[in-house]
Amino acid sequence: MQMSVAELLQSENFLHDVTIKGWVRTFRANRFIALNDGSTINNIQCVVDFENTDENILKRITTGAAVSLSGTLVESQGKGQRVEIEVKNIEILGDSNPEEYPIQPKKHSFEFLRENAHLRVRTNTFSAVMRVRSALSFAVHKYFTENGFYNFHAPIITGSDAEGAGEMFRVTSMDPKNPATDENGEIDYSQDFFGKETNLTVSGQLEAETYAMALSKVYTFGPTFRAENSNTTRHLAEFWMIEPEVAFNDLDANMDLAEDFIKSVIKYILEHCKDDLVFLDERFTKEEQSKPQLERSDMSLLEKLNFVAENNFKRVTYTEAIDILRNCKPNKKKKFQYIINEWGADLQSEHERFLVEKHFKCPVILFDYPANIKAFYMRLNDDGKTVRAMDVLFPGIGEIVGGSQREERLDVLKEKIKALDIDEKELWWYLDLRKFGTAVHSGFGLGFERLVQFSTGMGNIRDVIPFPRTPQNAEF
Amino acid sequence: MQMSVAELLQSENFLHDVTIKGWVRTFRANRFIALNDGSTINNIQCVVDFENTDENILKRITTGAAVSLSGTLVESQGKGQRVEIEVKNIEILGDSNPEEYPIQPKKHSFEFLRENAHLRVRTNTFSAVMRVRSALSFAVHKYFTENGFYNFHAPIITGSDAEGAGEMFRVTSMDPKNPATDENGEIDYSQDFFGKETNLTVSGQLEAETYAMALSKVYTFGPTFRAENSNTTRHLAEFWMIEPEVAFNDLDANMDLAEDFIKSVIKYILEHCKDDLVFLDERFTKEEQSKPQLERSDMSLLEKLNFVAENNFKRVTYTEAIDILRNCKPNKKKKFQYIINEWGADLQSEHERFLVEKHFKCPVILFDYPANIKAFYMRLNDDGKTVRAMDVLFPGIGEIVGGSQREERLDVLKEKIKALDIDEKELWWYLDLRKFGTAVHSGFGLGFERLVQFSTGMGNIRDVIPFPRTPQNAEF
Repeated sequence: MQMSVAELLQSENFLHDVTIKGWVRTFRANRFIALNDGSTINNIQCVVDFENTDENILKRITTGAAVSLSGTLVESQGKGQRVEIEVKNIEILGDSNPEEYPIQPKKHSFEFLRENAHLRVRTNTFSAVMRVRSALSFAVHKYFTENGFYNFHAPIITGSDAEGAGEMFRVTSMDPKNPATDENGEIDYSQDFFGKETNLTVSGQLEAETYAMALSKVYTFGPTFRAENSNTTRHLAEFWMIEPEVAFNDLDANMDLAEDFIKSVIKYILEHCKDDLVFLDERFTKEEQSKPQLERSDMSLLEKLNFVAENNFKRVTYTEAIDILRNCKPNKKKKFQYIINEWGADLQSEHERFLVEKHFKCPVILFDYPANIKAFYMRLNDDGKTVRAMDVLFPGIGEIVGGSQREERLDVLKEKIKALDIDEKELWWYLDLRKFGTAVHSGFGLGFERLVQFSTGMGNIRDVIPFPRTPQNAEF
Repeated sequence: MQMSVAELLQSENFLHDVTIKGWVRTFRANRFIALNDGSTINNIQCVVDFENTDENILKRITTGAAVSLSGTLVESQGKGQRVEIEVKNIEILGDSNPEEYPIQPKKHSFEFLRENAHLRVRTNTFSAVMRVRSALSFAVHKYFTENGFYNFHAPIITGSDAEGAGEMFRVTSMDPKNPATDENGEIDYSQDFFGKETNLTVSGQLEAETYAMALSKVYTFGPTFRAENSNTTRHLAEFWMIEPEVAFNDLDANMDLAEDFIKSVIKYILEHCKDDLVFLDERFTKEEQSKPQLERSDMSLLEKLNFVAENNFKRVTYTEAIDILRNCKPNKKKKFQYIINEWGADLQSEHERFLVEKHFKCPVILFDYPANIKAFYMRLNDDGKTVRAMDVLFPGIGEIVGGSQREERLDVLKEKIKALDIDEKELWWYLDLRKFGTAVHSGFGLGFERLVQFSTGMGNIRDVIPFPRTPQNAEF
């Protein structure tokens, strides 16, 4: 019977005749193969009867080689494992020349592994990260499905350029050397594939609103894009975003949803990814120990995950946050790069981190931001100067969620659009939602890779997505 | 207590004080509101005490208006529903001017609704289609998760152009009027965002293979793109594709997986989308009745779904299929547009439909195709002229799955690449998989929208995705 490593390690039945296929992690003493097939972080020990095995076969059992082993599952005599395989037959499926194979059983730098992104998932760290990523992805779909949401696929190529969430990539099938032009020498997009200028989406929100205003509860989970020259550990040019949108939800209900959702998916991985998280927890702790005392995390990875799952997020208005920041030590001692002097200032990462990591020491939801630092579609409060925006801030990550109650009043929305010099015609369909059966509604966007970063303790966002896209990098 | 229409219609408790928010579908006799909130295809009847209701409120209860109704859930006295709401309080949330609202309670053409794609999901047909689409999407994730697969997000922007599955869209942030050029006047992509020419992916398969060769069982579910000028009812420029990839699976196991997977997701919607499928079944039957007798489907929608869920797919080699086609009536009578004369011919949609709909009358898996009509990465059979390719053909849809066992032998793969004039350097990472621990592996791609078409009985692929992208069309 062919079984996976995960199945064998959990098996209650010994003396099974089994076949197992996987890749050699290590081979020591010409006897002990540590075999892995990606089904779990753990290897299974396979004991070779080297005295009765062809030496030419033994030589080919090297790190990275693919093998098929048949034998008996027995209780292990050695320490460190409950079960092992007594190997009766070895078939080498694919060799791996140890002189050439880049992934050796030693610590490789993450920079080196990024250059070998096609092989890095064969390491413990990356296989654990990607299994947790996969589990988080399923937890997202499960949460929304169980709570009456419909999945909605927002368009990736968009002819709408009014959202203004960031710089966009152009999508075209025109000849770059000889693009069609009109009589004024301008690019004639009517001759491009879609008959107009098109870009890669920066958010599916506006389209998701059209579906929320019919199905009540919807969510998107798809790729989004920013053509920004940001070479940081927190930015990607291509990343996956989760965007729920709910009719009849006000901002309070929106905060409840964000908090409940995040707690639910964290609980899911705590329950389903124990082995991977224990491994990543140890890795995280070692990594933290190499940092200066002051920069170290107070909690281990597992402590952080449990903390988020079990504690309420602190909800604070922007105005309260400004008061705290204005009077805090780093502001008074001018330790912040951007000193907070007055209401209206845009918060920088350093301020968000102070609030979360030093002041409140828990996830924080900031809300009711000044209107002029937030997007046009956010609902204006009665004070006329703040909008019903919210950001969820996480320790070590900063902003993980940005959301709002949407402006549902046609006249107010039209004024906003006018003030921003956006052509109303561009948004005719978005305005229609306010003309026909408008209602209070809210939603948010959660950057999936930031959630994976938080959940796995990985410091660089490029290490939590299989093939990262960043400025000057689209290899593979 | 605020409840959804779906919850209320299933409620066992009467005399509930409830609040319900949704959109008016119809309002008749100044008394009966049919209210829908998208949680189900069914409306809830809400009975207004019109004698004690302000006439100005009554006037505003029009099709498409958003309302909040409070009242008591009671057993219905009338026919056609088990329960209804005795309305005590009406709040108009958002008006809908009946002179302007495009979605009236009458039959609209699909063409008209496509132009109003932001509102069409407020109709019975499109809300049913999109709920089934959402359920299918969840069924996909559920099937793979329960069967030990990891979800893998393939890159959308790709620097790799060797796959050759079709024409690609270019992704750029260069100024289209003044692109950077080199000394020879050629476009200098080193100055574009990614430092090289980049395109939208046509398939995540090659990248998925890198993950299968470490995690054993992976799948992608993401958007893919074709810049082809195909104005048909079966093609989109942007569509979602599901691509499982499994180490150690040969073509037989690949066929088993495809068949089991498709049956599983169909069974899921038969169980979870009963009301929507009953509605779509009636719609399908009506639509079929308007067709000439000869073109009508033998089965109703529900019969087709049950048939697929319960019957084995017929597995036939390409060579057998050619024999059948060469000797069939439409070929001999020259009724086919493309007459099948000899082995090696590429099968057209008319041939596939004949095999599925007339000859076998069930889903068919064709396999072992001639090498020269299939992609370079498919495993060459020992006959030296066929490859381990497979296509799953469905009635009414044609090809719904295309897959293969992959060429795992480095030398054979290199020869194929050379013969096609592909630069080996372009595929260095793909070849690495054959250098280091190679093994038999297989996978397939399933076009999600074709699955939704089949599952909902919709004739045009533009009507099963929220905002379709096709030549000359990227509105919304």
